[in-house]
Amino acid sequence: MIKVGIVGGTGYTGVELLRILVGHPEVQLHTLTARKEAGKAVAELFPSLRRQVPLKFSAPEVAPLAECDVVFFATPHGVAMEQAPALLRAGVRVIDLSADFRLADVAAWEQWYGMAHACPELVSEAVYGLPEVNRERIRSARLVANPGCYPTAVQLGFLPLVEAGVVDLAHLVADAKSGVSGAGRKAEVPLLFSEASENFKAYGLGGHRHHPEIVQGLARVAGRPVGLVFVPHLTPMVRGIHATLYARLTRETDAQALFEARYAREVFVDVLPAGSHPDTRSVRGANLCRIAVHRPQGGDTLVILSVIDNLVKGAAGQAVQNMNLMFGLPEGLGLTQPPLSP
Amino acid sequence: MIKVGIVGGTGYTGVELLRILVGHPEVQLHTLTARKEAGKAVAELFPSLRRQVPLKFSAPEVAPLAECDVVFFATPHGVAMEQAPALLRAGVRVIDLSADFRLADVAAWEQWYGMAHACPELVSEAVYGLPEVNRERIRSARLVANPGCYPTAVQLGFLPLVEAGVVDLAHLVADAKSGVSGAGRKAEVPLLFSEASENFKAYGLGGHRHHPEIVQGLARVAGRPVGLVFVPHLTPMVRGIHATLYARLTRETDAQALFEARYAREVFVDVLPAGSHPDTRSVRGANLCRIAVHRPQGGDTLVILSVIDNLVKGAAGQAVQNMNLMFGLPEGLGLTQPPLSP
Amino acid sequence: MIKVGIVGGTGYTGVELLRILVGHPEVQLHTLTARKEAGKAVAELFPSLRRQVPLKFSAPEVAPLAECDVVFFATPHGVAMEQAPALLRAGVRVIDLSADFRLADVAAWEQWYGMAHACPELVSEAVYGLPEVNRERIRSARLVANPGCYPTAVQLGFLPLVEAGVVDLAHLVADAKSGVSGAGRKAEVPLLFSEASENFKAYGLGGHRHHPEIVQGLARVAGRPVGLVFVPHLTPMVRGIHATLYARLTRETDAQALFEARYAREVFVDVLPAGSHPDTRSVRGANLCRIAVHRPQGGDTLVILSVIDNLVKGAAGQAVQNMNLMFGLPEGLGLTQPPLSP
Amino acid sequence: MIKVGIVGGTGYTGVELLRILVGHPEVQLHTLTARKEAGKAVAELFPSLRRQVPLKFSAPEVAPLAECDVVFFATPHGVAMEQAPALLRAGVRVIDLSADFRLADVAAWEQWYGMAHACPELVSEAVYGLPEVNRERIRSARLVANPGCYPTAVQLGFLPLVEAGVVDLAHLVADAKSGVSGAGRKAEVPLLFSEASENFKAYGLGGHRHHPEIVQGLARVAGRPVGLVFVPHLTPMVRGIHATLYARLTRETDAQALFEARYAREVFVDVLPAGSHPDTRSVRGANLCRIAVHRPQGGDTLVILSVIDNLVKGAAGQAVQNMNLMFGLPEGLGLTQPPLSP
Repeated sequence: MIKVGIVGGTGYTGVELLRILVGHPEVQLHTLTARKEAGKAVAELFPSLRRQVPLKFSAPEVAPLAECDVVFFATPHGVAMEQAPALLRAGVRVIDLSADFRLADVAAWEQWYGMAHACPELVSEAVYGLPEVNRERIRSARLVANPGCYPTAVQLGFLPLVEAGVVDLAHLVADAKSGVSGAGRKAEVPLLFSEASENFKAYGLGGHRHHPEIVQGLARVAGRPVGLVFVPHLTPMVRGIHATLYARLTRETDAQALFEARYAREVFVDVLPAGSHPDTRSVRGANLCRIAVHRPQGGDTLVILSVIDNLVKGAAGQAVQNMNLMFGLPEGLGLTQPPLSP
Repeated sequence: MIKVGIVGGTGYTGVELLRILVGHPEVQLHTLTARKEAGKAVAELFPSLRRQVPLKFSAPEVAPLAECDVVFFATPHGVAMEQAPALLRAGVRVIDLSADFRLADVAAWEQWYGMAHACPELVSEAVYGLPEVNRERIRSARLVANPGCYPTAVQLGFLPLVEAGVVDLAHLVADAKSGVSGAGRKAEVPLLFSEASENFKAYGLGGHRHHPEIVQGLARVAGRPVGLVFVPHLTPMVRGIHATLYARLTRETDAQALFEARYAREVFVDVLPAGSHPDTRSVRGANLCRIAVHRPQGGDTLVILSVIDNLVKGAAGQAVQNMNLMFGLPEGLGLTQPPLSP
Repeated sequence: MIKVGIVGGTGYTGVELLRILVGHPEVQLHTLTARKEAGKAVAELFPSLRRQVPLKFSAPEVAPLAECDVVFFATPHGVAMEQAPALLRAGVRVIDLSADFRLADVAAWEQWYGMAHACPELVSEAVYGLPEVNRERIRSARLVANPGCYPTAVQLGFLPLVEAGVVDLAHLVADAKSGVSGAGRKAEVPLLFSEASENFKAYGLGGHRHHPEIVQGLARVAGRPVGLVFVPHLTPMVRGIHATLYARLTRETDAQALFEARYAREVFVDVLPAGSHPDTRSVRGANLCRIAVHRPQGGDTLVILSVIDNLVKGAAGQAVQNMNLMFGLPEGLGLTQPPLSP
Repeated sequence: MIKVGIVGGTGYTGVELLRILVGHPEVQLHTLTARKEAGKAVAELFPSLRRQVPLKFSAPEVAPLAECDVVFFATPHGVAMEQAPALLRAGVRVIDLSADFRLADVAAWEQWYGMAHACPELVSEAVYGLPEVNRERIRSARLVANPGCYPTAVQLGFLPLVEAGVVDLAHLVADAKSGVSGAGRKAEVPLLFSEASENFKAYGLGGHRHHPEIVQGLARVAGRPVGLVFVPHLTPMVRGIHATLYARLTRETDAQALFEARYAREVFVDVLPAGSHPDTRSVRGANLCRIAVHRPQGGDTLVILSVIDNLVKGAAGQAVQNMNLMFGLPEGLGLTQPPLSP
């Protein structure tokens, strides 16, 4: 059994991690920390977990994190980089669901996140935890930077095209729509039901933190710079990301076949038959990315539709997938429950 | 392994049954029938089940239902009563999620459902599948009438009070609110998103088929007639029932203690601490009824709050709970996944 | 033209007041105050009012409120009672949409609202602004206490029965459901989209501030104490209240006829034909209460369904209706736009 | 007063037309026809219009349509083209909210709509009713083809760029998101609340009828062919379209200034300040298109955000705007109510 600790398990990513881990056959939940909620039972904060998770939250100072085999950080950015070094020294592996170790360019990170990085020396060691790209490096990683939700949906959708070098890499467009849980469990007016319900809007056109993360990932695969216009939108649902991706073909390609071949052996990427339109609800609660490939009017612009549950394949599920890889377990262990639909 | 057949698995109850059974360790899905969809893959109709259920729907005539150990009917009323007799003669056990065998009074059934009953002789044999009341009879039943969704939430909420005989049985009030999936997957204008979203309304004040079912269940327990005003409402969400129940105390009682004692050993009924208000989402996707007990202003009126997922404890989950009992399996087998929240 | 001031127009009640007043033919919007937003254009805070309301918010200190003919308070409780006395002395009429002057019992008010009342001497002068009950007193009032949203829906639903003295006044039940905007534009976790969407729950069973307000209103009409169980619920929509009311008949009555007669001349109360179930959306955006009367199974319990838009007949619309009365205008002036549906 | 008739006023476009016309100071509603609902009161079908529209639906055969000054068709395609010729001969002007007269290329129309056109001779006379493009021709038109909802949002968003000739016209991208009411009031499974709620999906990638309409409009303005990738999506709200438009600059341009100049005198197009993100709810219920102009990272791709209420500026409101033009009334008469928000 793997002893697991979670730091900051009071947001949506945290409760989702608990939901998944409680059913994982090789996991023992050892300790949870949350400064503000220290002493409270998990079930008090998350009634859905009554009778499922008998633990209480501990203050970070006293939590026996160093006894764990692996610690997940489900915290805002800036926390993991403070605590990860000591844990790694103690031999604990770390999976960071926040953004602290996602960008290899420390200066860029500091600019986007508005603070000095506490342990730049670990940034280069950290492995970007997108298993469909970095599977082998993840297996032996001590420190995994779990990808953001938009970056997961967008990268998996562009990946086969970028690898094959068949599209104009200077002019990629990602028009992405996210459910409101992607913004976290923060008491902010724009996230209120009465603001977000029966409404649709774009945001972040001035610059979104997931933009450099996506560009970094695609550029690594391409071996050269890529240009991306990324427009995130808020859509009135709780869970789900739908990325609609546009790329201009530079070489004649059977894109459907390309995608099917690329993901043929992936458990958590499902290429739909030609002509499909994936629903976000078809992956609700599941660690899965479903992709459809279109070429409207037979023109030179490909349209890729890529859907995930932002809290699962876009966060907690992918983190557990990474854990499975790091501990030599079957990659899908504890992650094969069907989506909840309707 | 139990060989399972499902008749009519194309509605929300059917897809939910598939979702639950696909993860049940003692079940082998043997055959699914659906006249209109015969030949189609399950995943074609329900993309959420791609890679989970490789079966196709068969026409009812050719489906090898008689080879099954148990057949679930997830059909509109009027179908199970036609097919159940032959299956029972073939030694197959039957769990009917429709209403065909719920009312012991055949004349009343015929009046409420507007047709002649095809096998009144089986009505008296059928066991009403509310395990918290009929557990022992279910274990040996050949034919189980799975309760309706409202009747499950309302009966579990009133049960301890009725058993204890401490409230005015002539004037019970059940004000119940249901998500839209409770109305089924039917192409009807009032169920359209643009009609049901951002709207709330009562319906069925003129008489609802679940009224006689609830009254029958409570009267059996009470050993005498009960009077119930039942007002169902449609609320703009997909899943969930919230029953707010009102009963006048006729004898001084510690209702909180009464409920806790009554359900102390029930796996699927969770009595919340005093002062609680259960969310419907705290049971979403789970086979669970959560109950809170209130006595506002210390007056003589008790208010009981009872929530379920209408598709799980109110339909498919309870059906699998009944199957577990009928086949001597642990009652909770395959039914212990945590709710999906948010 | 009536010169109008609004104090605190940054919540949902405030923006709704602006939406209504901007189209009122006898109103000139003179000044708006909002401490935190001073200097901001209304349209910056509420983009829906771009090109409609060219005003800016002023700091309360400098706003020329004393120049107004009437000032609306769309503030949290505790503000109007501080500022109303000076305005009244200056000859300005005041319509308070908050709770400061709703309860005649100052001690009860102080207990429910947790603060000392700043001007108890005005409490007895204030007129409770439910025109269907207090029309004549409102016409000559200097200070109107605009009713709460639940109290409006519940009182209008019970009123004919209480006036006629035909039901058991000791055991009234009001099971009320509100859209989320009823909780205001406050940055609180339980009001987040991801918490309130796809969820239904009761709240406030331990005591809700609208309980004493409703009881006071009904007791005045009855001329004796009434007993009420009031259970508010949160339903996943923005606007609308649906009150389901239960009362036991003590005298044989044609309730449908009673309601039709009582409200025959009311412009803003619409008694539906027997057998109806009003949708909340049928009053969305309109100053209107629609009521249906039921007597299930011909028993002795009446069920009254009463729907309003909580922001209109439950707040801003009713406030304008009161203003019309106070200034001798036709009661419906500026309030006759049809509901927005779907 | 203008005598108005409506054919087919039983869908969402029809009820919205009624909501708007009932408040129009120069309109007299003369007759409504609806074959299936003949004899029913409007308020029976649309309870929101109780006390507002006292009319009944008539059978088409007997409705005194020829007595009207103008007849609106709020019908599925294929109806207006049958009835328009006789009305025009009788001197009645016609505004068709359906698609019958939108495409100048009759052969293309017949292919997209799957039927022979009943009066191709009128197609060339019909004026495409986008006032911001065709204002003068609309004033003198006998027959107006009211634009589709997507085409309104997309054309208004691209228009200044196409007129100025500053973008690559061969590679326009329109990623559009619509509320569910855009699909009409049809009893179809994919439009059910339980299917469309808490879900997001693209559709129509194989070809959507609004594609040729948009392309025709833009090509007319450009004076040469344009290439457009158009991807519509269904988002879980009732009303609203959000079009996110992508165009590559071919000549250095101050796009913000270009848009502001182009729409400076338009009452129903609102260009937001630079950096804005329009909410769909900021136009809910209003005849208004709000537009924001972005140029992410200062690159060569412009992103235009264009929002409308699909039932108002995208249908009924625009139809009334056209009527005002045709009858020499102020263009905004009856159309200036503020949006309903929240």
